[in-house]
Amino acid sequence: MTGFSTIAAFEAALADLPAPDQQAQAAARDRQAQLTKPAGSLGRLEEIAIFFAGWQNRGRPTMQKARAVVFAGNHGVTAQGVSAFPASVTAQMVGNFERGGAAINALTRAAGLDLRVVPIDLDRPTQDFSIAPAMSADECLTALSIGAAQVDAGLDMIVLGEMGIGNSTAAAALCARSFGEGAAAWTGPGTGVDDAGVRRKIDVIDRALALHRAASRSAFETLRHVGGREIAAMAGAMLRARQLRVPVLLDGFICCAALAPLARDNPAITDHCLAGHCSAEPGHARLLDRLGLDPLLSLNMRLGEGSGAAVATNIVRSALAAHAEMATFAEASVSEGQ
Amino acid sequence: MTGFSTIAAFEAALADLPAPDQQAQAAARDRQAQLTKPAGSLGRLEEIAIFFAGWQNRGRPTMQKARAVVFAGNHGVTAQGVSAFPASVTAQMVGNFERGGAAINALTRAAGLDLRVVPIDLDRPTQDFSIAPAMSADECLTALSIGAAQVDAGLDMIVLGEMGIGNSTAAAALCARSFGEGAAAWTGPGTGVDDAGVRRKIDVIDRALALHRAASRSAFETLRHVGGREIAAMAGAMLRARQLRVPVLLDGFICCAALAPLARDNPAITDHCLAGHCSAEPGHARLLDRLGLDPLLSLNMRLGEGSGAAVATNIVRSALAAHAEMATFAEASVSEGQ
Repeated sequence: MTGFSTIAAFEAALADLPAPDQQAQAAARDRQAQLTKPAGSLGRLEEIAIFFAGWQNRGRPTMQKARAVVFAGNHGVTAQGVSAFPASVTAQMVGNFERGGAAINALTRAAGLDLRVVPIDLDRPTQDFSIAPAMSADECLTALSIGAAQVDAGLDMIVLGEMGIGNSTAAAALCARSFGEGAAAWTGPGTGVDDAGVRRKIDVIDRALALHRAASRSAFETLRHVGGREIAAMAGAMLRARQLRVPVLLDGFICCAALAPLARDNPAITDHCLAGHCSAEPGHARLLDRLGLDPLLSLNMRLGEGSGAAVATNIVRSALAAHAEMATFAEASVSEGQ
Repeated sequence: MTGFSTIAAFEAALADLPAPDQQAQAAARDRQAQLTKPAGSLGRLEEIAIFFAGWQNRGRPTMQKARAVVFAGNHGVTAQGVSAFPASVTAQMVGNFERGGAAINALTRAAGLDLRVVPIDLDRPTQDFSIAPAMSADECLTALSIGAAQVDAGLDMIVLGEMGIGNSTAAAALCARSFGEGAAAWTGPGTGVDDAGVRRKIDVIDRALALHRAASRSAFETLRHVGGREIAAMAGAMLRARQLRVPVLLDGFICCAALAPLARDNPAITDHCLAGHCSAEPGHARLLDRLGLDPLLSLNMRLGEGSGAAVATNIVRSALAAHAEMATFAEASVSEGQ
């Protein structure tokens, strides 16, 4: 039983999050202090090694079984003209993923990540959330469980990505419902709408927030009211990864927006997550700040698909390689500093 | 004849720098516009692909023959107590590099870089530049030529790194002589001296700047007066790489300080260089700003050895993989945006 068959099961899982192994973290920290370099001179690479040690329960963490999962879903809210691309592009890009021609294919190959593509009911878009809840409770539980099912015990790391025309509008709505500040604070050009398009998105989100004002702000109800199938799947995968102590490398704005409702209910959910990058989508920096996450990369990317996290996977690999392979001062007969 | 046998030959090379191929850049830019992603959504990855296209003279640049070279040298200025480590550590670390136990070994393996280690006269430190020029003209030309000899035509990229106890003091002096602002603006803890140590470094550099005040500020004379053998070798390699149109991925403060005197004489020298990262050494951000370079990474690293550039190599690989391997909208039958 890997999924979340009831709202209560999902909420119980989110309320009961395992912690990293402190002994493995201490072993990794001790090892870092003995490696042939000035103390602390590998900066974040050292922190990454210690982070992975804690979640993998071993002093020398590994990156042999690493998976990227790209979930895809369609959004009824595209009827409101919120995207620069037609909704049919979601399925076209899934075909491109399956044939190996998208950015995420090249970037996962370069990063040594297995890639899974999981389209969810593309011919059945969510409801337009500016006029109704995006999903029924059953639809949302199904999407959460589809996400959870992609995470296996023993994975060294998982990258979560998405494809879904219209989903930067859903992501902004999730952030606004989770953290407040209003639609405008979270809304940007997404794949590339112009200023009028951004204003249209803000207006759509404002109407949705007003419509669903009386609904509970719990993680589940927020995901159900203004999320989407691929977004709920990422949220389910994040939570299942935590149960299995699998570290998550987060991608951009949409991916992190899936985490936002969970973090509102239990801020500790971010503890097994690293932010792969900061996207050019303006809401992402604000969201990372609210989540307390410091991104590994800031390369002005804004593609989604898991692309930023796939690139960041190489930083994690470098960190774990240095941690595992370097000689200690004693092994190398190198004098330590003052 | 790959080296610089006379000062005039070095200066002539620095005055006559080839430009990138505009046709190859245009071809790469055209291809980026056709790939299955919103225009510009891969951010700096797109810029990297276009940059490499221009220097490699091909619309689809490659990363098959990529080399990291770590030069090592010893510094007479260590007699002034400017480092947290004894000068003997330079040779000990060269042994560690040769046995494969240092950070740069693990990081170049992870990045698919060939590694060469080039110690230069470790048993003959430079003169203490607070009391005499660091090198004779012949010694400086020899070091420049040793560096130049490490660059071969047809390399896809080169990473330049260094090891030399005391060389953050030389680097700060090079920056101060090249760009002004005084020693304090460029001096930091290096491998980890305390506040008193930083004040001692500033005092040593101030004395050196006063001593060599009357000497020419040309690139050659600055490298000769306050540089070091491994630093001059990096400068020679950078210039030779430009002659051969081999892109250079720069490392941290010391590596970029080798470029500073060259950039003072001819700012166009930075055109074939990418900044791999911004170091935690405080002078580095200032130096990158003066050089007009925007670093790919900012991971709080401060090790040298080429370590930051080795990690950044993975970003370049990702950029070139996406550029070469992605399908176009036409190939994938994906609808383009508005």
